[in-house]
Amino acid sequence: MTNRIDRIDHVGIVCRDLDEAIQFYRSVYGFELCHVEVIESQGVREAVMRIGDPADEGAPYVQLLEPVRPDSAVSAWLDRRGPGLHHVAFGTGDVGAAADDLRGQGIPPIIDPPGIGPRGARVTFLHPRDCLGVLTELVEPPSFGAPAAGADPSAR
Amino acid sequence: MTNRIDRIDHVGIVCRDLDEAIQFYRSVYGFELCHVEVIESQGVREAVMRIGDPADEGAPYVQLLEPVRPDSAVSAWLDRRGPGLHHVAFGTGDVGAAADDLRGQGIPPIIDPPGIGPRGARVTFLHPRDCLGVLTELVEPPSFGAPAAGADPSAR
Repeated sequence: MTNRIDRIDHVGIVCRDLDEAIQFYRSVYGFELCHVEVIESQGVREAVMRIGDPADEGAPYVQLLEPVRPDSAVSAWLDRRGPGLHHVAFGTGDVGAAADDLRGQGIPPIIDPPGIGPRGARVTFLHPRDCLGVLTELVEPPSFGAPAAGADPSAR
Repeated sequence: MTNRIDRIDHVGIVCRDLDEAIQFYRSVYGFELCHVEVIESQGVREAVMRIGDPADEGAPYVQLLEPVRPDSAVSAWLDRRGPGLHHVAFGTGDVGAAADDLRGQGIPPIIDPPGIGPRGARVTFLHPRDCLGVLTELVEPPSFGAPAAGADPSAR
């Protein structure tokens, strides 16, 4: 395990209508829908559309986000900026060590220590004001095949 | 060669100060600077910072863009939206076939037929109005190791 950032895990895209966006990315680019869920804590409905081999759970993906509550952060984003690119997520083998490193550099992770996101990944975010305007997520994927120990059931 | 979109090639990020952004992505994430150039036709100075193995010319990267002319599209973007995520680029083995496919679906590529971009890649763009708000680039990488035949010298 290493805290090195070694890949683009996904790009997050805000949309007005998740079903329309799923259909767009499927028909235009051939991306495969792997997962849809409502994340109540964030007030969003999320779809994961994997790029490349859909059986490769480490392949990068497009994460489509539709707000389901007007008081959610994503709803405010949509009102302010319209639909489009929302964040980039970089992958690492150890998000806890990456968060420690960032804190040491004066960049406080928004979720500290990192939390358990959808599908058992460990994640944190960095605020755009600390990252030259880019909302940035760091993702440590779950150990595929193993039980997602510690996963937050409320996020499922 | 296939027109299948099979990876995230890069994310494009607009910044006010390219040197500051290069320093940020190097020191915070350890990304390696591979390339800097001015692209006169687009009025931008561009830096390529590869994620993962810098010797792997197929590895994804962050493309940092600083406007060098106030009348450039990127300058207008910066004035309107501030620094941050600008576009996502998907990789394909045959951008010409991908462009044909998109045109057939009623999505006109902005550069049609695809042009030669920096470092010999064949590229085109899709307008955000056709892509649910996302400025999207399609990239067919050059054949690494071979001369970049047909590369536009004015873009170098």
